[in-house]
Amino acid sequence: MPVSPAGPVGTLADVGEFGLIDSLVADLPTAPEVLIGPGDDAAALNLASPVLSSVDVLVEGVHFRRDWSTPGDIGRRAVAVNVADIEAMGGRAVGLLVGFSAPGELAATWALQFAAGLKAEAATAGVALAGGDVTRARDITISVAVLGVLDGLEPVRRSGARPGDVVAMAGRVGWAAAGLTVLGRGFRSPRVVVEAYRVPQVPYGAGAAAARAGAHAMIDVSDGLLADLGHVASASGVVIEIGRAAFEVPEPLQAVAAATGTDPFQLILTGGDDHALAATFASADVVPDGWLVIGSVRARGEEEAPSVLVDGAPWEPAAGYDHFRARWS
Amino acid sequence: MPVSPAGPVGTLADVGEFGLIDSLVADLPTAPEVLIGPGDDAAALNLASPVLSSVDVLVEGVHFRRDWSTPGDIGRRAVAVNVADIEAMGGRAVGLLVGFSAPGELAATWALQFAAGLKAEAATAGVALAGGDVTRARDITISVAVLGVLDGLEPVRRSGARPGDVVAMAGRVGWAAAGLTVLGRGFRSPRVVVEAYRVPQVPYGAGAAAARAGAHAMIDVSDGLLADLGHVASASGVVIEIGRAAFEVPEPLQAVAAATGTDPFQLILTGGDDHALAATFASADVVPDGWLVIGSVRARGEEEAPSVLVDGAPWEPAAGYDHFRARWS
Repeated sequence: MPVSPAGPVGTLADVGEFGLIDSLVADLPTAPEVLIGPGDDAAALNLASPVLSSVDVLVEGVHFRRDWSTPGDIGRRAVAVNVADIEAMGGRAVGLLVGFSAPGELAATWALQFAAGLKAEAATAGVALAGGDVTRARDITISVAVLGVLDGLEPVRRSGARPGDVVAMAGRVGWAAAGLTVLGRGFRSPRVVVEAYRVPQVPYGAGAAAARAGAHAMIDVSDGLLADLGHVASASGVVIEIGRAAFEVPEPLQAVAAATGTDPFQLILTGGDDHALAATFASADVVPDGWLVIGSVRARGEEEAPSVLVDGAPWEPAAGYDHFRARWS
Repeated sequence: MPVSPAGPVGTLADVGEFGLIDSLVADLPTAPEVLIGPGDDAAALNLASPVLSSVDVLVEGVHFRRDWSTPGDIGRRAVAVNVADIEAMGGRAVGLLVGFSAPGELAATWALQFAAGLKAEAATAGVALAGGDVTRARDITISVAVLGVLDGLEPVRRSGARPGDVVAMAGRVGWAAAGLTVLGRGFRSPRVVVEAYRVPQVPYGAGAAAARAGAHAMIDVSDGLLADLGHVASASGVVIEIGRAAFEVPEPLQAVAAATGTDPFQLILTGGDDHALAATFASADVVPDGWLVIGSVRARGEEEAPSVLVDGAPWEPAAGYDHFRARWS
């Protein structure tokens, strides 16, 4: 098998499935909870119940493009978006299982750099790589399953928002959408938004802090702030009111909005892929440090549907990302 | 959203991501262990440690073809191959998380029939669907993460085979490869082998029975009997000797071998995708009902590498399926 001291050379077809696996599992971040890691039919983890678990799939041409992101970026992103789902329940991610599918013609170095990104972000998030599967495919597809624990806290669901709650968020919104806008027009700056698109800055630890503070409801902001607060409103049967005045519009978003003739709040309110967290709390007094209060929860009026209002009115155009309806422009 | 009482009509793009999810999660098999099922950021399950977990990816054009399998077959197979990984540790599968990626042009009925197969096999295997992710992709890609428990048993690893052990297997080998051979030549019979290729008959419960009987080592036979016993031999540092006389060659395999001018033992020893279980035990006396003794384990000679021998000699041509080297003929 053509594996040099620096790693495999050539394509995945040259290296082969087992050569690739050997390289991928070298120097994996581990954790005391991982009793059996990669190399057997299944991983075994020592996890206190309830065990949290989620799966997310990243597809080339849909969630990333090889000419817009480095393999390391894509590896980091695959970890971040999955850990965000555990954060959004108030949990702590412990282990990841990674399904990696790619064409045999792919350079083995691409896979290794992807794995390096995966390992780096896993180390940052404090999560172990517990197992995986590699297989051939026409497009690079990365499916990550994440396992987490609650450390004695109650899981925070989407359905727990109550009238009178305040709404708060941790992390950034609009940055990844601004980066995507820029890349879509053939530019590479402002660099900070392009980097935000490539690797979301998930506010690791903010989910557990919210759960400790008694958050009533919480969600990972992946589809866009209004769309995801809409999921909370629907699941909880309430109306969520947010105010634009709560937000400071970051300079890079102002720049992108000005350059493209759009409203920066379109980015902030409807842009996906930043993986901020949004939550509701009984009062502003209990909202943890690092969270920004952006609105409140009220009961629905008679015959009023659950919804999200911005300064008292529906946001137009209606927000939300739908995977099967979306098209690359 | 165009959802009729009989389910969505048109394509996935017509139905949209959330319409598809609504249809997929209808009437899901559940389990008392599932505290929070589909519809939140992560599932929550009540599982005693150690928690077993594995991820497997099935890719259109690599693991299945839409003209060779029905959507229901593919759904059933996605469950079976994942549960087999938990069986191979001696465990009991409890929950599945399913990532479903497909082109927007796919008929919504395809996705619903796939989901029906998934639910049917999950019910057969006694496992709940705890969550998932749907997204757009060029090729249909199904990634399944499975969670399982050991019910107080010790996990059975690949590395535990000891000199003096007997080797046994549960389930079928060679059937799926015979089916693939037949389909690859444009035929649809013998029907039993074609069905075996489409949906493996995993011997549910046989893994836990082996663990209760004190199995020393165990593996899911996905790459082929010799290849997977080779993984056991390598991990355990032993030589495995198996004998062809232990096998009764099933009539359909005889028929396929005769029609294609091949040795039926090539199918039996090297055919993948049946998801039988192979294990080693201290003696034939403890091998559970339903398992067939096929060989024994011995210590390596001086400078002898771990290997698998058939009637005392290496099997030629060398066995094993490698995803990046394999090509459709």
